[in-house]
Amino acid sequence: MRRIHYMDKLFLDFLQPDQVLNSPEELLAYGKDWAKGFKANASLVLLPKSYEQVQQIVKCCYENKIALVPSGGRTGLSAGATATNGEVVLSLEKLNKLISVEPTQRTLTCQAGVITQKIQETAKENGLYFPIDLASAGSSQIGGNVATNAGGLHVIRYGNTRHWILGMKAVTGTGELLELNGELVKNQTGYDLRNLLIGSEGTLGIIVELTLKLAYRPKSFHRALCASDSMENVLSVMGSVREKFERVSAFEFFTKDCIECVLKHHPMRNPFETIHPYYALIEIEDLSESEEEQFQETLLGIFEEERITDVVVAQTSLQSEELMLLRERIGETTSSHYTVHKNDLAVPVRHIADFIREVEERAPLLFPDCPVLLFGHVGDGNLHVNILKSDALEVEDFFELCHKNDHDMFTIIQQFSGSISAEHGVGLLKRDYLQYCRSEAEITLMRGIKKVFDPAGILNPGKIFAPERA
Amino acid sequence: MRRIHYMDKLFLDFLQPDQVLNSPEELLAYGKDWAKGFKANASLVLLPKSYEQVQQIVKCCYENKIALVPSGGRTGLSAGATATNGEVVLSLEKLNKLISVEPTQRTLTCQAGVITQKIQETAKENGLYFPIDLASAGSSQIGGNVATNAGGLHVIRYGNTRHWILGMKAVTGTGELLELNGELVKNQTGYDLRNLLIGSEGTLGIIVELTLKLAYRPKSFHRALCASDSMENVLSVMGSVREKFERVSAFEFFTKDCIECVLKHHPMRNPFETIHPYYALIEIEDLSESEEEQFQETLLGIFEEERITDVVVAQTSLQSEELMLLRERIGETTSSHYTVHKNDLAVPVRHIADFIREVEERAPLLFPDCPVLLFGHVGDGNLHVNILKSDALEVEDFFELCHKNDHDMFTIIQQFSGSISAEHGVGLLKRDYLQYCRSEAEITLMRGIKKVFDPAGILNPGKIFAPERA
Repeated sequence: MRRIHYMDKLFLDFLQPDQVLNSPEELLAYGKDWAKGFKANASLVLLPKSYEQVQQIVKCCYENKIALVPSGGRTGLSAGATATNGEVVLSLEKLNKLISVEPTQRTLTCQAGVITQKIQETAKENGLYFPIDLASAGSSQIGGNVATNAGGLHVIRYGNTRHWILGMKAVTGTGELLELNGELVKNQTGYDLRNLLIGSEGTLGIIVELTLKLAYRPKSFHRALCASDSMENVLSVMGSVREKFERVSAFEFFTKDCIECVLKHHPMRNPFETIHPYYALIEIEDLSESEEEQFQETLLGIFEEERITDVVVAQTSLQSEELMLLRERIGETTSSHYTVHKNDLAVPVRHIADFIREVEERAPLLFPDCPVLLFGHVGDGNLHVNILKSDALEVEDFFELCHKNDHDMFTIIQQFSGSISAEHGVGLLKRDYLQYCRSEAEITLMRGIKKVFDPAGILNPGKIFAPERA
Repeated sequence: MRRIHYMDKLFLDFLQPDQVLNSPEELLAYGKDWAKGFKANASLVLLPKSYEQVQQIVKCCYENKIALVPSGGRTGLSAGATATNGEVVLSLEKLNKLISVEPTQRTLTCQAGVITQKIQETAKENGLYFPIDLASAGSSQIGGNVATNAGGLHVIRYGNTRHWILGMKAVTGTGELLELNGELVKNQTGYDLRNLLIGSEGTLGIIVELTLKLAYRPKSFHRALCASDSMENVLSVMGSVREKFERVSAFEFFTKDCIECVLKHHPMRNPFETIHPYYALIEIEDLSESEEEQFQETLLGIFEEERITDVVVAQTSLQSEELMLLRERIGETTSSHYTVHKNDLAVPVRHIADFIREVEERAPLLFPDCPVLLFGHVGDGNLHVNILKSDALEVEDFFELCHKNDHDMFTIIQQFSGSISAEHGVGLLKRDYLQYCRSEAEITLMRGIKKVFDPAGILNPGKIFAPERA
């Protein structure tokens, strides 16, 4: 790869000077995402304003063998959007136009740089609903959500980002603009390149435009928080609730350590009188009055069967909001107040209780004195394991310990046929562990596909898997 | 490619004699699917009983450059499973084991040769639901459904087959067994090879095992048939009904010619006193008593607004069945009683009224005196256009006319940003028309991907796109 000097004039043939950033502050800001422990080292930042300019940049990089890092809201947690190796950052932030909303067919077309929250709001203004709800929605961009197939709280009812993508325009590693699937619900004409690009973390193409499906807007959300003595009971509650109520839109789980951590750092009220070992946050959409009663009765029944030790059903929208915040604030609280090592894992739903037991047994041995916070989207088998640094450890020693012990963690996941990255992607953070859930044959096929889309290897090199040696 | 002689002993090193068929009748039966106008010309039929045998066959064909046609229930309509060129047919029919059902996580794991209806029944026995409902469910195999990403009546609510696939095992063109995604709901670790194989029509790998998601079982289906004077009104009815009722599981459309054709060949009752220009069949799941009343009131309101000219709501399950049969029998009636040319098209939902108007104007000019039957899944923008041979035309002249005029038809589709194959796939039937909905750049990428999975070009060569010359 050719190393770009920060004063390089290469891109000024087709970009305006204000579209080429090179101050140290800008290079630092655009050179990394929310993942900790990776050092920004970008050479330039480019801000194309049209698809044609994206094509021109890619063609120029293709001809000159310059590595490019496609960049959205940089809210990723796996260093998928970091430029650690002198790459040129291509930010989509100026491609932020909402193109159209078609209420009759419930679609929204926009450029890739539109902020996720803006899409949620636009859907709402049209009486519709974009169900991908992420803690980072205020700054993440839709193109990045698609490139990482983002998940979030509502996957149990609505699926991942993948399920909401009808059409896509993307620029390949040779600068070709692909226009995939348009506004079609059904189209069975050859390989689904759109689904291949979804989740490819910018290594196959740069997504520039999307046509999203939208859902009908739920009229109300009903939330309850249950406390329980065992994970088995949490899961059996999930079975009972999902069987009775079709519109369960979130079933979130967290432990004692999580709620204590949130209550310690936020002026929030503990909804119960004591702290319990396990919690389940249930959200259901659009209950009628009689269904609401049925929901309360169901929970009461579960309480009488002693599957839960306490329960509170939100009676006001404020209460409802507060219950959700107890869950939503866990991730951010660990990031803001602690040195934390985050793992985002999944196992088949039927294994989750056994898996959590195994983690609870092994974690204290692997990470002595470090609090281990378990929470996540238990309905999807998706568990976040946040390990907090103990006071006894230096930061460097802590991360060394974590990275060393990741192998043990990932071996346990492998034994349960799980995934080492449920929704955060691979990026740089997990690429050296990919073999824990993808076989050698799969990795070889992925490398082959990468070469087909990006023969010069200029698109986000080193993300997902290490670049091949020349 | 090496031509296999029917007495070739190559495969008897690892298959039993009863796993190698070569009688003229067997070669004829296994050499074609439901598509008309393609001549079976298979060299051998192989019936592997294990994944290892599938791998052995593929490795043998890879080493000897022998073309393979993967074969399921052979109910396809695009000649995706035909062996017209001396290929060896690899039938999955002996790989027909149901492996497990996991009610707690609502999954079913089975081999690829299991009949679709068997899956529906097994789901039912477990109180669950496999929502892919095809006219061919009694003989189609799940592996074939997945290889063609089959659609059917319930896509409007449940999506295509793609949406119900969690895990997949498949053998690539070099004989590698891939085990993709297992039972994971969430897994964001590199490219989604599973979604690439779905809909690849046997050209990238041979699917041998699947883990399907299952849905909760609907308790009841409520159906109504509406008659209308215009397509615009049919579409506005769809908008009104879908907005009010969340669980609309089918919204099917057909014309006067379709109902006349079905009534002529089946001893069925016309539910109305006269014949109307357009019909809409509505199916909704699980209406409560009050919602049922609301459904009737909604339809009555639409009738009073004169958007529909007549309406009947099924009051018994027999009536309900009869209404559905009016729609379901259209395809089979044209196949059994006429010489028919079928097109399976899609356009964006917002264009469907304009598109149908265009087809209704152009069809009589393109196909003089030939009845043109329009019906389909209007909620998905998916239209079936069945052209029946007029008495005046000889069969050969009719098909010549149809293939010539397909170009005009496909040009219209292209103008509406549509698809020339919504749910039937490309196979041999439409491969020479692929450029009407896939760009040169996309086709080049697809060819590149094909080479990565199948470097010797032995898997279903000539399907989707013409094989590259050596």
